[in-house]
Amino acid sequence: MAIAKRLAAEFIGTALLLSIGGGAGIAAQRLAGGDAAMALLVSALVGATGLAVLVLTFGNISGGLFNPVLTLSEAWRGNLRIDYVAPYIVAQVAGAVAGMAAVHGMYGLDLMTAPHGGRTGTSQWLGESVATFGLLCVFIGCGRARPAAAPFAVSAYVMAACWYSSSPAFMNPAMTLARAIGEAGALRLADAPAFVLAQLAGAGAATAIFIWLHGTSRGPVRT
Amino acid sequence: MAIAKRLAAEFIGTALLLSIGGGAGIAAQRLAGGDAAMALLVSALVGATGLAVLVLTFGNISGGLFNPVLTLSEAWRGNLRIDYVAPYIVAQVAGAVAGMAAVHGMYGLDLMTAPHGGRTGTSQWLGESVATFGLLCVFIGCGRARPAAAPFAVSAYVMAACWYSSSPAFMNPAMTLARAIGEAGALRLADAPAFVLAQLAGAGAATAIFIWLHGTSRGPVRT
Amino acid sequence: MAIAKRLAAEFIGTALLLSIGGGAGIAAQRLAGGDAAMALLVSALVGATGLAVLVLTFGNISGGLFNPVLTLSEAWRGNLRIDYVAPYIVAQVAGAVAGMAAVHGMYGLDLMTAPHGGRTGTSQWLGESVATFGLLCVFIGCGRARPAAAPFAVSAYVMAACWYSSSPAFMNPAMTLARAIGEAGALRLADAPAFVLAQLAGAGAATAIFIWLHGTSRGPVRT
Amino acid sequence: MAIAKRLAAEFIGTALLLSIGGGAGIAAQRLAGGDAAMALLVSALVGATGLAVLVLTFGNISGGLFNPVLTLSEAWRGNLRIDYVAPYIVAQVAGAVAGMAAVHGMYGLDLMTAPHGGRTGTSQWLGESVATFGLLCVFIGCGRARPAAAPFAVSAYVMAACWYSSSPAFMNPAMTLARAIGEAGALRLADAPAFVLAQLAGAGAATAIFIWLHGTSRGPVRT
Repeated sequence: MAIAKRLAAEFIGTALLLSIGGGAGIAAQRLAGGDAAMALLVSALVGATGLAVLVLTFGNISGGLFNPVLTLSEAWRGNLRIDYVAPYIVAQVAGAVAGMAAVHGMYGLDLMTAPHGGRTGTSQWLGESVATFGLLCVFIGCGRARPAAAPFAVSAYVMAACWYSSSPAFMNPAMTLARAIGEAGALRLADAPAFVLAQLAGAGAATAIFIWLHGTSRGPVRT
Repeated sequence: MAIAKRLAAEFIGTALLLSIGGGAGIAAQRLAGGDAAMALLVSALVGATGLAVLVLTFGNISGGLFNPVLTLSEAWRGNLRIDYVAPYIVAQVAGAVAGMAAVHGMYGLDLMTAPHGGRTGTSQWLGESVATFGLLCVFIGCGRARPAAAPFAVSAYVMAACWYSSSPAFMNPAMTLARAIGEAGALRLADAPAFVLAQLAGAGAATAIFIWLHGTSRGPVRT
Repeated sequence: MAIAKRLAAEFIGTALLLSIGGGAGIAAQRLAGGDAAMALLVSALVGATGLAVLVLTFGNISGGLFNPVLTLSEAWRGNLRIDYVAPYIVAQVAGAVAGMAAVHGMYGLDLMTAPHGGRTGTSQWLGESVATFGLLCVFIGCGRARPAAAPFAVSAYVMAACWYSSSPAFMNPAMTLARAIGEAGALRLADAPAFVLAQLAGAGAATAIFIWLHGTSRGPVRT
Repeated sequence: MAIAKRLAAEFIGTALLLSIGGGAGIAAQRLAGGDAAMALLVSALVGATGLAVLVLTFGNISGGLFNPVLTLSEAWRGNLRIDYVAPYIVAQVAGAVAGMAAVHGMYGLDLMTAPHGGRTGTSQWLGESVATFGLLCVFIGCGRARPAAAPFAVSAYVMAACWYSSSPAFMNPAMTLARAIGEAGALRLADAPAFVLAQLAGAGAATAIFIWLHGTSRGPVRT
């Protein structure tokens, strides 16, 4: 697939992913009227559902990654050309920002969120690392054992991670950055780098373990 | 498949779709007792579930479209005979009205709904356009990449759109019309045309982008 | 498959189906503390989930019908031997009663339910007919077009029907009977026959329509 | 697959399973603010979702059992080498304890749970037996009839069992033990053996019935 179409798919897909997640988060808080469990239930269900649907829609064009840490893991395991990594990440970040802009257009500028506990500190970073570790386990393990089921499994895991992790469970540097820029209160920009580091640590550990579990042979580059 | 059976399938399917969506909306409001998040959660889940099930049930007879904008997009991409478009849309609108009538029979005439925010204005139209844009992305993209999963993906997207869009997220002119006629308060008839235009704009943009993404060659007419 | 194993599968499956539905209904009411929407959401989700799982578990032994109206429809369309109909229905009714007994053992005898609106009258019968009509559409239509997806589609439809119908949406004479016997308040025994008649009317109409839609040729008896 | 990789998969999978179930249980109680139905809905959904995802991720390495009673049933039916049983169970129990430790790290030590009714007594043991009986029916029956759907069916059953059983529905001795150790109030350690016995009784009955239903021939050992 031509690189222009790949980048268009990553851009549109990430933009829709952030529109769905951001818009649902706002609607959930407005309608739930202080019921924090209902707001998180809706946000987690809708956001995860959106991810599955978008992977099914754009996966055959660009891989449907929408996430820099998945992009890096794919390149490490030899499934994505190294020279595609930087443009993919640029398209993902640009798409994430565009999606947040669409949310602002649909709902207006003064947004608020209900942080799921505090947003920084050791226990938060541990939670974000564990959550991202699990995400990469599912992405790699199910992607190899049951590729047709992988979009559903990754989506279902994301829903679960929104609940089980003590962190906000972004598990995605592009989303972390767009949320820090886009919604007042979701995350301070100064706190974003620590979350990104925690995501990279969890993703790196899971990738290394699965390279051992699946053997050292790597598949051919998918282009 | 003979045109009579196709139109019967579109009519029965759209009627059941509106019965499920309308009936569940009423039951959800009655039982939720003012909990707007619970009412929308149930309406979105049940309506989307009904859509998936009906596509699986009638898809091999008529395509299981139940929606004029999907009908137009299929014809544009060469997947539906042009002379089928008008009868399909008539069957869909008639089925939608019949479904609303069944809801009135099951629950009585004085109905009420809880509008999801205001029902007209620029931000509403933007929301309806974005929601319909996404619907067509999923319908076309997943329908080509993973056709067996498409009914589930479209249904899941509809559930998500009910939450993330700032509009009522009908994404279907037949449903928009039947709701404007059938349930007091859901939508004023005078507001319906603007929503239908927003739906057509979003659907047209997505169809054009995917014709570029998938290449200019179009598959043969499925008849 | 030997008839003894078929009947054992129908008996165990129907017993587990009623255990799941009855037990979840009681737990949902106890925990929901008067939130009728939450109680119905849980009952509908859990009951429908149980149905899907049991069809996947016992389907290859007995067909996984667990329901007299599905049994009759299968025989009408030539998919079940006529002399199996009576023993199947006896096993289903006996299993339903056994399942209600297990619920009584797990939770004690003084049970209560929250009737979903009134439990008799024209609008209730119309709701039960429409709900059963839709069930048979999905069972027959999806069972032919997408047999692997049919257990999920039937289950999802049942979840939706619990919400959209104005009736209790039993759609199953064995369950209707066991509920009338087993749980005080769910249904008066005197009201059961009208619901069963409504179920038969809806099921008969859907079966006749699909015999026309799918053509007059019937497949060979599956034994 | 080498035994070291199998045991690593069982250990990591069971640790993530307990992290997900334990973390989600804590988050659900904190956010639900006394709404017991919402807390159980979230715990059941997230825990069951995590199970499905982890079976899809690790199933092709170790079978994705994560549960001593499933391990024993697999060995009885000839699907697992007898000399693997003890190391599997050790890895599962160690993983369960590691998962609880991760939860403590993410959320801190003073944990609390909302017991789903009382935690011991005849009706509880009956509930746990019935729930585990059903789990093994689904695991064996669906695992043979529809192996690709089995991870989803087992997961869905677990969600249903959390609701319909009058017991806590652990259905897993490793989880029972880790919960008794790890979370104050979930279960007294002295009550754990009775639950494990109830689990073994239900699992044994279901395994015996399915050996009869599927015939006496057993498949070859999968290694």
